Amino acid sequence: MLTRSIIKYIQSLQHKKFRDEHNSFIAEGLKVVNEFIKDNQFDCKNIYATSEWINLYANNLPLIRGKIIEVKDFELEKIALFSSPNMVLAEFRKKVIKAQINYQHKITLVLDDIQDPGNFGTMIRTADWFGIENIICSGQTVDMYNPKVVQSTMASLGRINIEYIDLAKELKKNSLIKKFAATLNGHKLEDISPLKEGFIIIGNESKGISKALLEMADIKFTIPGYGTAESLNAAVATGIILYSIVRNS
Amino acid sequence: MLTRSIIKYIQSLQHKKFRDEHNSFIAEGLKVVNEFIKDNQFDCKNIYATSEWINLYANNLPLIRGKIIEVKDFELEKIALFSSPNMVLAEFRKKVIKAQINYQHKITLVLDDIQDPGNFGTMIRTADWFGIENIICSGQTVDMYNPKVVQSTMASLGRINIEYIDLAKELKKNSLIKKFAATLNGHKLEDISPLKEGFIIIGNESKGISKALLEMADIKFTIPGYGTAESLNAAVATGIILYSIVRNS
Repeated sequence: MLTRSIIKYIQSLQHKKFRDEHNSFIAEGLKVVNEFIKDNQFDCKNIYATSEWINLYANNLPLIRGKIIEVKDFELEKIALFSSPNMVLAEFRKKVIKAQINYQHKITLVLDDIQDPGNFGTMIRTADWFGIENIICSGQTVDMYNPKVVQSTMASLGRINIEYIDLAKELKKNSLIKKFAATLNGHKLEDISPLKEGFIIIGNESKGISKALLEMADIKFTIPGYGTAESLNAAVATGIILYSIVRNS
Repeated sequence: MLTRSIIKYIQSLQHKKFRDEHNSFIAEGLKVVNEFIKDNQFDCKNIYATSEWINLYANNLPLIRGKIIEVKDFELEKIALFSSPNMVLAEFRKKVIKAQINYQHKITLVLDDIQDPGNFGTMIRTADWFGIENIICSGQTVDMYNPKVVQSTMASLGRINIEYIDLAKELKKNSLIKKFAATLNGHKLEDISPLKEGFIIIGNESKGISKALLEMADIKFTIPGYGTAESLNAAVATGIILYSIVRNS
């Protein structure tokens, strides 16, 4: 049974202000919630689940004893942000990044004011696919715990270190690591050899990369287009860039 | 001034049933509406615009005389599906594809049950970037005139021929054209040379490509992953595939 105050509390976590205040965020649905718990990606605070989910999964998942509140389908719909909440919704504790990120011998994704939560989440999922460990973001980048970001990462959220940081300062501090900027008029992407190390800078969906960062770039590159579209979606562009630049061997 | 019946009518066009009945769809915001009109991509039926839009654009756009209904900001918000309607919303006539598509000497995108409107719209925009002319879709693919599809194409919608068709029958009929299927265990994508002709088959977001189409594929390929994500977003995968396979020269 959900009390009115629980419903209000969960709904409040759709807003960054309350996520910050309570150091919490919400994930929805089987896939994301179960993986977060299974891999212990985030510390679980409370689980709101239907009897079906409890029967199927509660015994096989560790560390959730005493945290489950059984809810009816209509109750789950009330607290869910998405139209098909799929059996479960859970509150997790935000993660604290403990150590200074080491950028050496690694590709690091640098996100300069990405605004769309779906784009950001998809970028995190894509980075995880290509084995990227670290993403650093400008302070104006959408919150990584925004429910739409969480959902579109498809559980990759906990497997990547994401840090909000003064990008210009951070890149300056790491002056020995090369900086590659995705622009609309640079070298052809396919002319850049696969990399073992570097910052890959992706700009805001409409304004692109800020002037300060652009001036710090060692190499500007472009994804060649042969049609009439003005630009690519930022998450699609990120996927193409990582495919082209990252190699395992 | 918007009457209650106009508001009801426009809202009804969020649903496929009514779009089909009236042979109409809605586009929102400066970028998409202005490009649709400017390039005469779709026949415009009615424009609901603020005085600001009218002052800025009405005189420079052709074929819209007598079609503009001036609305206040709060009225525009009432009929808009998206949270920031951006000065204008317009009703357009759906397009009829006149001729049989010619698949020779071209790359054609084949979409097997893509469900997410954002993914589908982004695929259309990406196809436009890479100069793809034709997309053929299964009957179960989300409607191309769904408002979220329209919006995420960023005005590429009218520049691509999109046809809903029995895919198995159509691929069978064109037996001389090679079929390439995006799967999770095929040849490495980078081992496939750039193509001048072929069907590129992309499957449903969760179920992948249907058995019937998979059996018709000449070549199955995979985007290599080096991390822990289970899969890539379907639109990101499409972008990577087209980048790798399409060359202009």
